[in-house]
Amino acid sequence: MKTVKQMIQETDLNEAFYQAVFGIEKEGLRVKSNGQLALTDHPHEFGNRNFHPYIQTDFSESQLELISPPLASIKESYNWMAALHDVVLQTMPLDESIWPVSMPMVLPDESVIPIAKLDNKEAVKYREILTHKYGKKKQMLSGVHYNFELDDQLIVRLYECQTDYLDKSSFKSMLYLKLAKNFLRYRWLLTYLLGASPKVDDSFFTDQEIPKDYVRSIRSSHYGYVNQPEVAVSFNSIEDYVHSLQAMVEKGFLSEEKEFYSAVRLRGTNNAEKLLTEGVSYLELRGFDLNPFDPFGMSKQTIEFIHLFCLYMIWMDETATVDEIEIGEEMSLTTAIENPEQISNFQEEGLQLLKQMEEMLQATNGAKEAYNCIQEAKKQVIDPKLTVAARIISGIEEKGSYIEFSLALAKQYKKEAVEKPYNLRGFEKLEMSTQLLIMDAFQKGIQVEVLDEQDQFLKLTVGKHIEFVKNGNMTSKDTYIAPLIMENKTVTKKILGSAGFHVPAGEEYSTLAEGKAAFWRYEQKQIVVKPKSTNYGIGISIFKQLPSREDYEQAIEIAFKEDTAVLVEEYIPGTEYRFFVLDGKVPAILLRTPANVVGDGKKTIKELVDKKNEDPLRGEVKHHSPLERIELGEIEQLMLKGQGYTVESIPETDTVIYLRENSNISTGGDSIDVTDDIDESYKQAAIDMSEIIGAKVSGIDLIIPDPAISSTKEHLGYTVLEANFNPAMHMHAFVYKGKGRRLTMGILKMLFPELWEKGKLNR
Amino acid sequence: MKTVKQMIQETDLNEAFYQAVFGIEKEGLRVKSNGQLALTDHPHEFGNRNFHPYIQTDFSESQLELISPPLASIKESYNWMAALHDVVLQTMPLDESIWPVSMPMVLPDESVIPIAKLDNKEAVKYREILTHKYGKKKQMLSGVHYNFELDDQLIVRLYECQTDYLDKSSFKSMLYLKLAKNFLRYRWLLTYLLGASPKVDDSFFTDQEIPKDYVRSIRSSHYGYVNQPEVAVSFNSIEDYVHSLQAMVEKGFLSEEKEFYSAVRLRGTNNAEKLLTEGVSYLELRGFDLNPFDPFGMSKQTIEFIHLFCLYMIWMDETATVDEIEIGEEMSLTTAIENPEQISNFQEEGLQLLKQMEEMLQATNGAKEAYNCIQEAKKQVIDPKLTVAARIISGIEEKGSYIEFSLALAKQYKKEAVEKPYNLRGFEKLEMSTQLLIMDAFQKGIQVEVLDEQDQFLKLTVGKHIEFVKNGNMTSKDTYIAPLIMENKTVTKKILGSAGFHVPAGEEYSTLAEGKAAFWRYEQKQIVVKPKSTNYGIGISIFKQLPSREDYEQAIEIAFKEDTAVLVEEYIPGTEYRFFVLDGKVPAILLRTPANVVGDGKKTIKELVDKKNEDPLRGEVKHHSPLERIELGEIEQLMLKGQGYTVESIPETDTVIYLRENSNISTGGDSIDVTDDIDESYKQAAIDMSEIIGAKVSGIDLIIPDPAISSTKEHLGYTVLEANFNPAMHMHAFVYKGKGRRLTMGILKMLFPELWEKGKLNR
Repeated sequence: MKTVKQMIQETDLNEAFYQAVFGIEKEGLRVKSNGQLALTDHPHEFGNRNFHPYIQTDFSESQLELISPPLASIKESYNWMAALHDVVLQTMPLDESIWPVSMPMVLPDESVIPIAKLDNKEAVKYREILTHKYGKKKQMLSGVHYNFELDDQLIVRLYECQTDYLDKSSFKSMLYLKLAKNFLRYRWLLTYLLGASPKVDDSFFTDQEIPKDYVRSIRSSHYGYVNQPEVAVSFNSIEDYVHSLQAMVEKGFLSEEKEFYSAVRLRGTNNAEKLLTEGVSYLELRGFDLNPFDPFGMSKQTIEFIHLFCLYMIWMDETATVDEIEIGEEMSLTTAIENPEQISNFQEEGLQLLKQMEEMLQATNGAKEAYNCIQEAKKQVIDPKLTVAARIISGIEEKGSYIEFSLALAKQYKKEAVEKPYNLRGFEKLEMSTQLLIMDAFQKGIQVEVLDEQDQFLKLTVGKHIEFVKNGNMTSKDTYIAPLIMENKTVTKKILGSAGFHVPAGEEYSTLAEGKAAFWRYEQKQIVVKPKSTNYGIGISIFKQLPSREDYEQAIEIAFKEDTAVLVEEYIPGTEYRFFVLDGKVPAILLRTPANVVGDGKKTIKELVDKKNEDPLRGEVKHHSPLERIELGEIEQLMLKGQGYTVESIPETDTVIYLRENSNISTGGDSIDVTDDIDESYKQAAIDMSEIIGAKVSGIDLIIPDPAISSTKEHLGYTVLEANFNPAMHMHAFVYKGKGRRLTMGILKMLFPELWEKGKLNR
Repeated sequence: MKTVKQMIQETDLNEAFYQAVFGIEKEGLRVKSNGQLALTDHPHEFGNRNFHPYIQTDFSESQLELISPPLASIKESYNWMAALHDVVLQTMPLDESIWPVSMPMVLPDESVIPIAKLDNKEAVKYREILTHKYGKKKQMLSGVHYNFELDDQLIVRLYECQTDYLDKSSFKSMLYLKLAKNFLRYRWLLTYLLGASPKVDDSFFTDQEIPKDYVRSIRSSHYGYVNQPEVAVSFNSIEDYVHSLQAMVEKGFLSEEKEFYSAVRLRGTNNAEKLLTEGVSYLELRGFDLNPFDPFGMSKQTIEFIHLFCLYMIWMDETATVDEIEIGEEMSLTTAIENPEQISNFQEEGLQLLKQMEEMLQATNGAKEAYNCIQEAKKQVIDPKLTVAARIISGIEEKGSYIEFSLALAKQYKKEAVEKPYNLRGFEKLEMSTQLLIMDAFQKGIQVEVLDEQDQFLKLTVGKHIEFVKNGNMTSKDTYIAPLIMENKTVTKKILGSAGFHVPAGEEYSTLAEGKAAFWRYEQKQIVVKPKSTNYGIGISIFKQLPSREDYEQAIEIAFKEDTAVLVEEYIPGTEYRFFVLDGKVPAILLRTPANVVGDGKKTIKELVDKKNEDPLRGEVKHHSPLERIELGEIEQLMLKGQGYTVESIPETDTVIYLRENSNISTGGDSIDVTDDIDESYKQAAIDMSEIIGAKVSGIDLIIPDPAISSTKEHLGYTVLEANFNPAMHMHAFVYKGKGRRLTMGILKMLFPELWEKGKLNR
């Protein structure tokens, strides 16, 4: 039979060879800021663990399990874990974080450690059996599971260039079985490189010998999380695997199949029996300690290295025998209890393996990153001080104790996650509103698929209910015509005006002559002359005094230079408010003020600006934060000059200095939430306008001279300037002053009302 | 008190003075091609006369009344009448047209002339009273009513610069009353200029004296449509008008107020009494004969002239007294029975009036068109042979009889209206689909307002039910997300693919490296490499043979020059069909074939092309007809060369010569309706796809190798290439071969299902 190596090389499938699907599952204990296990409930914000695809609890109520879906690249998988950590850490109480190492903190008495409070009685019963068998403390060990699946098309292509297997399924199972066997034979190298539990507080050991010294991985050693010695499952063939696993359960050595704590499990179905008919569809690799130096427990480079390691396990000519597997298991156990700062007992084999992996890369035109990965591993095999376990030891010695070391990292990662609540790490390329929506979906357990990143296109799924969302707020709940109406200022005005809402008087003109001839309609009014479709102020003239015919005609000419249609509109002075209408309610109203600073009698304007810009909401990169930094450019300096200031002036205490005419957030303006300060009548007006337009989501801009006085049918208290079909949501979520409003959650409630029905979101 | 002239001049309201609102109502008898009155029912296609705003019947079932809504320009009013004529003439049976003159054809016995078959019993009873009083024949006279309203803002401005009137309403009524009085005094000039009923068949006169000679206007003369002599209504004041009108009804001289056949009626309410409290809001000018030389009964220039005439009636210093009104009425009656080819008895006054109108224009900076209008009138006053009545006489003499003359014009206008059924005259600036939708709305009596011409934005109203439509098919019935999905090819494919529909295999790549590295996925397939968002074929490479790595990589590079994302897709050979999905049905399926001609063994290719291009469906102006002319440009000639032909070749009988590779209609392709030839399973698939996307309206493009074989879940018989969110509708309505499908009517049914409920569209 041809080897995989031969098949790949014969068919020029080099690129294909590296295609795979990855899934990461990461456990971690919730810890209080005093270093104690958090005995609080799994945060209710995470909704219902009956179906939550991403945020679960493992054995204990305090033990988070974060799960990424199968994704076709390492980068995406890592990003997903980053995002889940952001969501979890931002949602958890401020004084809770995630313990970053596999071995626990000083645990309370076993009776106090809470088993996961699940609805499913079977699941709770299983945990009780585990408690009885292993003790609760051992169940508190946490690690990373790594699901690995070869590209299906790759398997097809390989299958097609051999003749030994007559059906694709058994060919595929053969590949996975080979991978599994060789993995078990050589996984000691991963234990060496990735072992990251050299130490635990002595209180962890109750009736066991305490390791005398640091080891590479307590968790992967006989001190750790292993089945009882009676448990023996064969990887000889699929049949042997299934039957021996079933036998272990029948004999009572395992309470369920999933209690089989092997470093590799053959996967594809929830039930081993089915492997016989359906074959293996992926492998679950389970042996990995949490890497405390990565905020998400496993670095991108590690995910990459494990991938290359798996590929080599398929690539190599031999397949490990049952005996060799046993040798491999022993080698891993030996490695686990080696002193991390000492050379591996198996250094030579390790270097040999890495050399062969390198050769595989050469033969298949591997990527530069892959070479680097292997180089890095080689360095660590040569110098054990570079391994993660050894680096943890340095950390512990530096901080004084295992607990201090771990807690400091836990707190650091918590801080990093809550620092910029408007960003979802791993998804920063998306617009802020879409990031916030994904954050909320992750929190509530709504499945997310990014269909098109550039286009902000998401697929959201709850059970069989699928919804698509673009730009965070464009959904199936809105009618098609509504945004088209809002996109056209003239049409919007005509519709709102004829429905009895107060719009600025005015008309659209499509010729210069028509526009000029209409002067008589405006000569007694303050007006704005503007091109029909411009958003950047180009070609707009504002007449705050009554226009002369000459000036008016000039304004018309200017506007027609920008567009084939020109609007002349009554200019309405007064304060403008943005009403965010969502599904027949107004959950947020925002007032935007121009960029400004408030004097303190001491600082210069420049210093005041610098100070105001320190607010993390003002971000670093333009348009990637809810507020923008105030600049001191030409426009601002001119504005200061007009008021008799320079950037070096020191304004008196409480004097407000405006640096801009316009109140856009994008030019350093402030956002002030006034949702609770505006009379209900205006909210109702905005709701009514949205309904007339047929919009479920809209941003209605109203000028209101006095928001404390009710608007009535007889005395309309507002003028509506515009209705926006893609209103920004993030600016309401993080405001300069007032209460932030989480509109993205409202979008999810509109899309999946069934989720918010009584009881559905309770665990 | 200041005169209007003074007010206008003082306040520089020249432009304002010309602003007005116009409404036209035009009656016309339906006539058979043999010249007899059509005794058929009012076409049932026009739906329900209980609410039809545009197409009504007047006295008789055979007497159409076409009504334009109040519109702010003469151009729009005229266009509206043109469009209504198109709709009516296209809908009526082929052998019926509209009698183009005021006096009827040879009428059948009175007992046979059908009274309008209305639901409203009062309305029928009123017509029976009229029958009794005037005889049916006289009720068959037809004419044009002209509703005239001054711009409201103009009235406000005039009101503000005087002090005599203390409320706007009475000031306004004063203006209209002045207009009415002066109009009655001077309207003889309009009778002279616009009188257009010089003759009727002698059979019209039963118990009356027959006019000996041609007259200017039988209709406006004592032979015509006048109240009995007892009827006397005073225009002295609003109060006098109301009270005298009420008195006439009380005394039984009039059966209802609306029986008052004055040349002017004060309007604003349906009930004269209310004029006392609410004032006059517009005037109804009723004295106009149909102008047979205009296809719609009144020329644009006439509408303009009447407007200027009305303005002068306000502008002039004097207001006619009761006595002067009586004189005026007499002058009009005299004028009506003058010989059209003779000089007016009142020529001097006529010329004087026109001179003063000209002075008004000078004083108010009137438009050039206005001057032309008056010049034209002046010529006619000087030379009576130029009047419409005189021109009709020439026509009659030329054709041999009044009947022949009228019938020829009726037929000519019918022909012009049905010639290009895809165009709605007056609305040609709109896209074809929007024109068709308006046509259908006009037919069914759905109120139409063009909110934005450039943007194809319509407001449709039935009772209180309002719908907005853009581009003919974008409505409130579609979800917002559906078009966004369809706009994004990758997202559409992902959604349809994951829902189990057959999409071409393929992926999107966002870097050159990724794209190139994926070669292995495609090396065994026919593929298309294309930039993600291009519609014009730029940057696309099609591999009908298996691609080499080199060619593939080059194709990727070419595509990336056009876009930041590139799609590689399986190339699916086969015939492509456009499925138009509308509200869960497939009312139309189109096959498009490349531009082609079929040989006859005699004609050259050039001659065959010329012949094919004669089809009126191939239009004259690009993109304004359902099919396009075949060109013989470079591409076509190259294509011919490839087949061994030149434009001078003479292909054998029945040989099909293709002139293009692509099957776009826009490059001369043929459209073939195959709705009834495709297996239901494909229709269901297209319906299901639209449902998954959430679209009520979509154009689904399927490749089907054999449309006679059912598609099943196991053997999908199609591949879906694209879903289009703005599918053309007009190309299904007018096809090269097969049955045209009126999809616009389907859109209306979707929007206003209540209208299609049982009985609603019956008269």
